[in-house]
Amino acid sequence: MNQLDLKKIYSEIEKFTTDRDWDQFHSIKNLSMALSVESAELLEIFQWLTEEQSNKVKDDPKTKSKIEDEVADIFVYLLRIVHKSNIDLESAVLNKLKKNEEKYPIEMSRGNSKKYNEF
Amino acid sequence: MNQLDLKKIYSEIEKFTTDRDWDQFHSIKNLSMALSVESAELLEIFQWLTEEQSNKVKDDPKTKSKIEDEVADIFVYLLRIVHKSNIDLESAVLNKLKKNEEKYPIEMSRGNSKKYNEF
Amino acid sequence: MNQLDLKKIYSEIEKFTTDRDWDQFHSIKNLSMALSVESAELLEIFQWLTEEQSNKVKDDPKTKSKIEDEVADIFVYLLRIVHKSNIDLESAVLNKLKKNEEKYPIEMSRGNSKKYNEF
Amino acid sequence: MNQLDLKKIYSEIEKFTTDRDWDQFHSIKNLSMALSVESAELLEIFQWLTEEQSNKVKDDPKTKSKIEDEVADIFVYLLRIVHKSNIDLESAVLNKLKKNEEKYPIEMSRGNSKKYNEF
Repeated sequence: MNQLDLKKIYSEIEKFTTDRDWDQFHSIKNLSMALSVESAELLEIFQWLTEEQSNKVKDDPKTKSKIEDEVADIFVYLLRIVHKSNIDLESAVLNKLKKNEEKYPIEMSRGNSKKYNEF
Repeated sequence: MNQLDLKKIYSEIEKFTTDRDWDQFHSIKNLSMALSVESAELLEIFQWLTEEQSNKVKDDPKTKSKIEDEVADIFVYLLRIVHKSNIDLESAVLNKLKKNEEKYPIEMSRGNSKKYNEF
Repeated sequence: MNQLDLKKIYSEIEKFTTDRDWDQFHSIKNLSMALSVESAELLEIFQWLTEEQSNKVKDDPKTKSKIEDEVADIFVYLLRIVHKSNIDLESAVLNKLKKNEEKYPIEMSRGNSKKYNEF
Repeated sequence: MNQLDLKKIYSEIEKFTTDRDWDQFHSIKNLSMALSVESAELLEIFQWLTEEQSNKVKDDPKTKSKIEDEVADIFVYLLRIVHKSNIDLESAVLNKLKKNEEKYPIEMSRGNSKKYNEF
């Protein structure tokens, strides 16, 4: 993974939305619904597969293309929410990782999938 | 929105995961579940708000910070899926926008929130 | 709402599943994924509607029929999870309502949609 | 599974809601969001478990109690939607099962988890 040109990507998203006059539907509430819907469409691809099978679907071009489409939809709605909430995505991620480091101290969580409030 | 340094962000994510030996839990199936769970935590923030209220929560520092945390969690799991599926995120988004342009011709979808299969 | 003949409904569900030899796919983990997927399909119906519009969709026969189908799918997967987890649905609901009564005392929550941990 | 006394259950739900004057928040749109949120809370219990582990959690009283609570929350919101949409739950399920029988003919779907549009 390298640089991601968010400026270019987001200007394409805005053009797509403006051309269709869809901003009127894009309250943050509605965008959070659309994001959940797209996440569930990704989930659906894996629902009856074993974990092992799920790790191999990328080798099947048709399924990989479906995953790419769902990932793209999720990212598009995520960026819309980021934009409308004045969030700096990079800082948000780095801050959250720091919080997680405190919630999940290495010695307590190594090899352990328990939630922090269940230690 | 400008450049996003995915290399830096993703190396932090990988370090966090490796330090805790959590890769064993991160099948793509499980990551897709975690992504849906985090999307629903974002959804929860807005479930009883009006659309208008949802557009204003960013002005409340406490709620904005919650939104930032959920957006970060979603993006982290999305990047894990992207990485494990060998997806190029930028191409995936630009390709999907092109498909959407065909599914939603401007003249049919302007100001209209109907799904493409309901035109 | 009156009596619901779960015995009859569930025996139809079991027959459908057994006829197709689908029980092999129905771990509780997978059923919880399917339940989330179906819930999101219900969510999708309302994502671009206003709250007012959402309250009126039942007057449109085509949309009402879609809602009925999604509600049915959700209930079917819920009953599968209930059955496989040896849960008594009626007790579970009545117990949870009691817990909610304590978490949300009337005087603190009247007309207030805040979550119990935000009082 | 036997009879489920929906009349009793639903009158408890209505009393709980009315006592708190919460009906004002319960548009069908919002209820569909709450249903998705609760479904994801159930999903969260299983996200890092293997399928085999997910089938055994009912033997752990603490986890079983969590599952019961989430199942109850899902069912409560589902009944609210059913009530507000004038849906007959029993007919909805039996009709949907009939549709599924046609979408998934036994000879094509036996032992096969493919979606009907992928046959």
